[in-house]
Amino acid sequence: MEEIGASAKQASAKIATATSDQKNIFLEKLAEILINHTDDIISINKKDVDNAITINADDAFIDRLTFSHANINLMADGLMKVAKLNDLIGQTSNKKRMPSGIEVAQMRVPLGVIGMIYESRPNVTIDAAALAIKSGNSIILRGGSESIHTNKYLALLIRESLNIANLPEASVQIIETTDRSAVTEMIRLIKFIDVIIPRGGKSLIQKITNEAKIPVIKHLDGNCHIYIDEYANIEQAVSITDNAKTQRLGTCNTLESLVVNSKNAAIFLPKLKKIFDDKSIEIRGCERTKEHLPSIISAKDQDFYEEYLGPIISCKIVDSIEEAIQHINKYSSSHTESIITENNDNAVKFIREIDSSSVMINTSTRFADGFEYGLGAEIGISTDKFHARGPVGLEGLTSLKYVVFGSGQIRT
Amino acid sequence: MEEIGASAKQASAKIATATSDQKNIFLEKLAEILINHTDDIISINKKDVDNAITINADDAFIDRLTFSHANINLMADGLMKVAKLNDLIGQTSNKKRMPSGIEVAQMRVPLGVIGMIYESRPNVTIDAAALAIKSGNSIILRGGSESIHTNKYLALLIRESLNIANLPEASVQIIETTDRSAVTEMIRLIKFIDVIIPRGGKSLIQKITNEAKIPVIKHLDGNCHIYIDEYANIEQAVSITDNAKTQRLGTCNTLESLVVNSKNAAIFLPKLKKIFDDKSIEIRGCERTKEHLPSIISAKDQDFYEEYLGPIISCKIVDSIEEAIQHINKYSSSHTESIITENNDNAVKFIREIDSSSVMINTSTRFADGFEYGLGAEIGISTDKFHARGPVGLEGLTSLKYVVFGSGQIRT
Repeated sequence: MEEIGASAKQASAKIATATSDQKNIFLEKLAEILINHTDDIISINKKDVDNAITINADDAFIDRLTFSHANINLMADGLMKVAKLNDLIGQTSNKKRMPSGIEVAQMRVPLGVIGMIYESRPNVTIDAAALAIKSGNSIILRGGSESIHTNKYLALLIRESLNIANLPEASVQIIETTDRSAVTEMIRLIKFIDVIIPRGGKSLIQKITNEAKIPVIKHLDGNCHIYIDEYANIEQAVSITDNAKTQRLGTCNTLESLVVNSKNAAIFLPKLKKIFDDKSIEIRGCERTKEHLPSIISAKDQDFYEEYLGPIISCKIVDSIEEAIQHINKYSSSHTESIITENNDNAVKFIREIDSSSVMINTSTRFADGFEYGLGAEIGISTDKFHARGPVGLEGLTSLKYVVFGSGQIRT
Repeated sequence: MEEIGASAKQASAKIATATSDQKNIFLEKLAEILINHTDDIISINKKDVDNAITINADDAFIDRLTFSHANINLMADGLMKVAKLNDLIGQTSNKKRMPSGIEVAQMRVPLGVIGMIYESRPNVTIDAAALAIKSGNSIILRGGSESIHTNKYLALLIRESLNIANLPEASVQIIETTDRSAVTEMIRLIKFIDVIIPRGGKSLIQKITNEAKIPVIKHLDGNCHIYIDEYANIEQAVSITDNAKTQRLGTCNTLESLVVNSKNAAIFLPKLKKIFDDKSIEIRGCERTKEHLPSIISAKDQDFYEEYLGPIISCKIVDSIEEAIQHINKYSSSHTESIITENNDNAVKFIREIDSSSVMINTSTRFADGFEYGLGAEIGISTDKFHARGPVGLEGLTSLKYVVFGSGQIRT
């Protein structure tokens, strides 16, 4: 692990000053190579899939693990999109002349070496390598042991593309051992790794955060809320709530908890219930919700903390926007919250006072996503405030250094 | 400690949405109160100073601990300057309309609760409180035990000013116990504290970084370099080197190591030696430096890693800018480095390839400072890349959340 770290650090000095052309050649070549090797990738991936079936992995797991022609095309498309993104590295901003005569600006620079720890989806191997290289960083990838054959083969194709672009091979390295101690070592390698990005279940991320000696860009859970304000457009409220909950059940920006102003409960809740009944979504409500929907299950306090990632939603009735904000700031995981309102003051209040990485007005929480925000791609979503918050694209993998231009000035 | 943390967190929600007026009233009132209580502050500070004399603290320590009329005026001026700075909180930027119809922007928000751990200088108590409040954060202050009487009294004056501005008292809290376990508890209080900022000796900061469970904005040492390029203006090189080393010996942006291109060594080094001899600065040089200055002491490898903070400088002769960059990136602490050159290509190469928080051309490393960079004030200098790099002003104490404006959009 020390050796991998040291070579990644050494490579990072070269990749930091690589030209945009070199980085884009890498991305375009890798896209081409992936397409040309589609059959090989699928046949090697089948080893991992067969192993997963042997150990009775569940369907969702196998689905995430499996590569198809469509998956591989999507990865190649993603690479071409990253190639087209602006190269941020070396850009200067905020230039100003100071009274002393010096000019001060900030230059965007890479973080250095990224350590990425992730579970089964092997497409992360390609996506993360692409974003790391485009942002001038080296990356060390530690995928799930279940996708080891796929990842090792992808590493070969990545190395080939790096060579074509005349970039150091060590700028993308895959940890080939499935030994868990590799992760423990990796997250303490402060001499060589500048940031750890874990992707996976909450327990994995919590464990890494607790033990890491290196800064972590972490994404815990997405207990997302929608608040139906007193001044909501009810049709919009129903359609947005339906979309946020049911468009996809298992994503981190899926709606998990609904907060309804009491003035709208009588009209809004029965309309929503009808749709949710059709889609088999279970509502777990507070006592006041039950007054309007007597057949539903009572919510326990724990329900309001829950990221269900499934066909369940909690519901709380409040009497004011203040109470809504207080409830949400208490139970939310600070991922994404939306207010449905036609009242500008309430919209502004919600946006200012809700302490989450994305705060929305009159739209679906499902939009909290790097592509939907125009970042071009995302390496993860940060529920932290430090360094990067919300969807993390290229900029989140960079830092700013000060550059100072003088002509002989000294300090007096 | 839990109680202090919880109340700071609670207060942070209020201070986050305080108006600019409220925050500025706090700052202006505190300035007024400090001036009005100058005599009381000095007499209470005398207790700490007397105690320090009793335990035979050294002169530099006592100097840092002691308040004078001039100090107190400076603090009050500082507060008025912070009051005049723009309020960043609530500002939105990067607004753009996406193909889906939603508008996405980023809003500047406070980090939440700052934990500040510092050694003797009690003016930090006032400076840090001012920056925290102006940037919408709560702060918990843990000063050195030697300044406990001064800090407790300043806390009283701060509370009075918070009350006048109708801001929660718990937004600035001072830990009144001098028990060291308070620090250990504080740096693990992840539930309530969002960032730790330590200021003090390298060993304190390293200990905190090792043990903290919370992100740390850390400033380790300042082993700053100047490289005298082949194309340097020699008069400028001499004057800048002299200023960077001798204007103040004990600051983190003081020059500690000189790298000289061999083509200039014969003319530059004797000129510099003459000045340094007059000022009793000792040069420790590599073997090639000794060929030009036979009377100097030989530098050991360890010398090139040293932050002397005193009248010593190391010196290395190199044959190319590449060798200079390699030497600096190896030995530097990534604080501040400057190149003296009239050659644009070399200047650009140096700026791009030196991996430090400030990189300069033709000027003195002593300019690496929040005031000289126009930040208005600084709470510290970060030698990290993560979150904030270089001098940390108001912006370093904030984060960006995404705000999304819709009109009924759902994701398809």
